Amino acid sequence: MKIKLSILLVGLAFLSWSCTPPAVEKTDVNSEVEYLASWNEGPAKQSIIDFVEAVTTEGSPDYVKPEDRIATFDNDGNLWAEQPFYFQVQFGLDQVKSMAADNPEWRNDEILKAAADGDVEKVLSSGEEGLLKIIAASHSGMTSDEFTASVNSWINSAKHPTTGLLYKEMIYQPMLEVLEYLRDHDFKTFIVSGGGIDFMRPWTQEVYGIPPEQVVGSSLKAEFKEIDGEYVIMKIAELNFIDDKAGKPVGIHQNIGKRPIAAFGNSDGDLQMLQYSSGTKGRSFQMYVHHTDAEREWAYDRDSHIGKLDKGLDEAAEKGWTVVDMAKDWKVIYPSQLD
Amino acid sequence: MKIKLSILLVGLAFLSWSCTPPAVEKTDVNSEVEYLASWNEGPAKQSIIDFVEAVTTEGSPDYVKPEDRIATFDNDGNLWAEQPFYFQVQFGLDQVKSMAADNPEWRNDEILKAAADGDVEKVLSSGEEGLLKIIAASHSGMTSDEFTASVNSWINSAKHPTTGLLYKEMIYQPMLEVLEYLRDHDFKTFIVSGGGIDFMRPWTQEVYGIPPEQVVGSSLKAEFKEIDGEYVIMKIAELNFIDDKAGKPVGIHQNIGKRPIAAFGNSDGDLQMLQYSSGTKGRSFQMYVHHTDAEREWAYDRDSHIGKLDKGLDEAAEKGWTVVDMAKDWKVIYPSQLD
Repeated sequence: MKIKLSILLVGLAFLSWSCTPPAVEKTDVNSEVEYLASWNEGPAKQSIIDFVEAVTTEGSPDYVKPEDRIATFDNDGNLWAEQPFYFQVQFGLDQVKSMAADNPEWRNDEILKAAADGDVEKVLSSGEEGLLKIIAASHSGMTSDEFTASVNSWINSAKHPTTGLLYKEMIYQPMLEVLEYLRDHDFKTFIVSGGGIDFMRPWTQEVYGIPPEQVVGSSLKAEFKEIDGEYVIMKIAELNFIDDKAGKPVGIHQNIGKRPIAAFGNSDGDLQMLQYSSGTKGRSFQMYVHHTDAEREWAYDRDSHIGKLDKGLDEAAEKGWTVVDMAKDWKVIYPSQLD
Repeated sequence: MKIKLSILLVGLAFLSWSCTPPAVEKTDVNSEVEYLASWNEGPAKQSIIDFVEAVTTEGSPDYVKPEDRIATFDNDGNLWAEQPFYFQVQFGLDQVKSMAADNPEWRNDEILKAAADGDVEKVLSSGEEGLLKIIAASHSGMTSDEFTASVNSWINSAKHPTTGLLYKEMIYQPMLEVLEYLRDHDFKTFIVSGGGIDFMRPWTQEVYGIPPEQVVGSSLKAEFKEIDGEYVIMKIAELNFIDDKAGKPVGIHQNIGKRPIAAFGNSDGDLQMLQYSSGTKGRSFQMYVHHTDAEREWAYDRDSHIGKLDKGLDEAAEKGWTVVDMAKDWKVIYPSQLD
């Protein structure tokens, strides 16, 4: 079970596009409508505005003190794309390729050899076992500083195979606007992702405006070491925490220590996080991004391998949670599509 | 080993004093000297000021961007007192006593019966095994919300046996001033304590101005549950993480994701945290509070059961870290001693 999950999440993806810092249009804090400029008018957009106005207007029966305005966001498929694979898997494959020359013993392993030779199909067809090998080879046995340097190098150069965009450009402009809108109303925004915490933290500040300490994710174990007089954190090839499904509320509890009043996701892996946030004493907000846009992005839900949204779709309907119809609700998908 | 550590840290303390919100004198951001008003002039105070000026003055060769100004503080013996026992141990004992009526089976256990009857000496003489029983009985088998309510009730009423102060009043006024001074210079202040994360988070905002999400500590495992239609976090009687010694840099890595440029502690349990922070690329600051004040507080170091400071004292001397002489450097100990 642990191994399965670890793949789904430490395991992450494929795609290619070019980069400018996320643009968020806004005027002043009081003109709410200006905030969500890439959202078409409709019930989804309106539900966000209604919630934020209710909990931030002093004197409102739903008013929430700023210190309790905690909002949590899934990452893959919610803040950036995740097809045809979690992007972190592509990072792992690219890493194995670039590290192969220094690890000649990998030639003796069928999977690692395939990854080193760029035979992605073969690696993926090997299933979980193969992906775990890729993760172990690319995400452990090095210091955290070395790993961070690798991630930084990759995130600033690697491009998605079909879009041609940098992976970090495949972020959702409308969600950037939600982050900005919430923060301007004194929310603290957190990422709570099944993805690797050490993989996300190097770039979330630049890309989403979310600092490393507000990122919760899956992790490997780590050890403090003194090596040649340097004090370092070594990344160990052993799972520490799986921040997915019922793990998400646990990750929120252990890392944040407060129940979010707003939670945003796109898959059944986010369902428990949305449920947890719905249990606040006061008003709360739950939202699913529904991938309905085969033309501008991808369309997938109940039967998808990546980002399966099945139970969540039913529960959202039953409980009146907001379900964003990407094709209808979003004027643009990526920042580069802004005028 | 796990069991030993768990006692030392989830296990925490005894003492009694009365409460006003921490007062911190200051004028404006530029008049540094006004900030540390409860510090006597001397090398300790000066070293703090020199560091903060060096890393926050634009154009200084040691300048550090605000987002990298991470400062970590041990709690027991560094922000509040810890004698004759970690205060969290007293909380555990008090909890067992108040929960005993609802748990009649505890009468069959020698240790739990002793705790229920208020025979603290007997519990303590039972050593680690006894303390672990107290922690398990008082810190697990309940929801996180129930546990938080217990902590809140205790922290607002329990008094230290010899000082008569509330435990939350036995915080160090000079350290509150350091926290304030750093935050006013755009530092983000974190607690990194061997104490229980769920025990500290309910009151660190009020007492230290540190929000729950900036508290790192030891933890039990937790589980997400739906109980009678309510979504809750259950606290489990199994250790999750020991945030002490070499665990502190690991806790910092997993929870904060950045290396602190300033670290404050008082015992050998903090040594690795101070070492880790000393490994930043730029200028950094390490400080030990040395408990030298038998009259106003307690005097202890190399041979102490609680808060042992032995290796750390040597390493501080060797590396030129700041060592605060409580008796000499601090005008007052607790906020209630301010004029």
